[in-house]
Amino acid sequence: MLKGILQYAHTLLDKSVNKGETVIDATCGNGHDTLFLSKLVGEEGHVLAFDIQQQAITNTKKRLEQNKRTNVSLIHDSHAHIEKYIQLEKHGPIGGAIFNLGYLPRSDKTVITKGDTTVQAMKAILKVLKKDGLIVAVIYHGHEGGEEEKNEVLQFTSALDQKEYKVIKYGFINQKNNPPFIVAIQKLK
Amino acid sequence: MLKGILQYAHTLLDKSVNKGETVIDATCGNGHDTLFLSKLVGEEGHVLAFDIQQQAITNTKKRLEQNKRTNVSLIHDSHAHIEKYIQLEKHGPIGGAIFNLGYLPRSDKTVITKGDTTVQAMKAILKVLKKDGLIVAVIYHGHEGGEEEKNEVLQFTSALDQKEYKVIKYGFINQKNNPPFIVAIQKLK
Repeated sequence: MLKGILQYAHTLLDKSVNKGETVIDATCGNGHDTLFLSKLVGEEGHVLAFDIQQQAITNTKKRLEQNKRTNVSLIHDSHAHIEKYIQLEKHGPIGGAIFNLGYLPRSDKTVITKGDTTVQAMKAILKVLKKDGLIVAVIYHGHEGGEEEKNEVLQFTSALDQKEYKVIKYGFINQKNNPPFIVAIQKLK
Repeated sequence: MLKGILQYAHTLLDKSVNKGETVIDATCGNGHDTLFLSKLVGEEGHVLAFDIQQQAITNTKKRLEQNKRTNVSLIHDSHAHIEKYIQLEKHGPIGGAIFNLGYLPRSDKTVITKGDTTVQAMKAILKVLKKDGLIVAVIYHGHEGGEEEKNEVLQFTSALDQKEYKVIKYGFINQKNNPPFIVAIQKLK
């Protein structure tokens, strides 16, 4: 059957990330993806989870504690600075990354991810991503500012050289209210 | 990793069609999908394979014979008349269907599928499709007339009631030369 957006995002990472790898949650939000990634890479693996909002860091920390997960570094900073926190010699090539774009659910809708910093973070991750690794972006765009970010991300990803990257778009086309969709980038070399 | 278009189309059907069911290849072309479906439903199942071109019927017949497949009815008629050939009491609810839209590869590029008859065929199949069954359309649109058909199919499918159908679009967004993409419809009730 046709997978829902979050289910499809997790399936893509499930099939491309290996146990023991370091992966990135670029927008930890309420920690759902962080918890998923933490289990996916196993005890030997590591998750670098970013969020610019203290509330998101707090919520994710709580969720991880409740689930007794200890393999996550929570980083209270914008994913625009992701480059500062990735050390190839320490983390190895990154196994995969997820972005959940928009605002923190059940929180202030005016604090949103923005196209320029999102693209900056994607560029930084592509440099350190393993061959055949994926960046999966779940793009919410119904809120104010969402349209602009959506367009910037689509512009950047659709211009990626097809000899070096595959980029797919997956989404429901008969749903009302600007449903989220997925853009996933696979690094080919 | 990110699945290619044909691989993804087959995966969707592989996960939703059961052995013993009757399925439809609305555009048998050179018989690749017909052969796939023939194996998918097994000896107890049945494939109704349509094409308006004699060359396609001949090519598909040859491919099926080479593979010793005997569970296919080849129907030399437009899929616009699909309704005439489906008898619910005989075939049971249809397990799934595939459309490969465009022209017959290595043949006359002026003989193409067209939006109005394609939509007519989709409507007929949706009526007899099983619950949670899929129609998977692989949409080639780089040829003359392809743009019109693409738009008609997208207009029809994106207007389907989300309470009764899920409709997804899957495709590569960083490839040159109008790459094909997939539209898949899941019947929810």
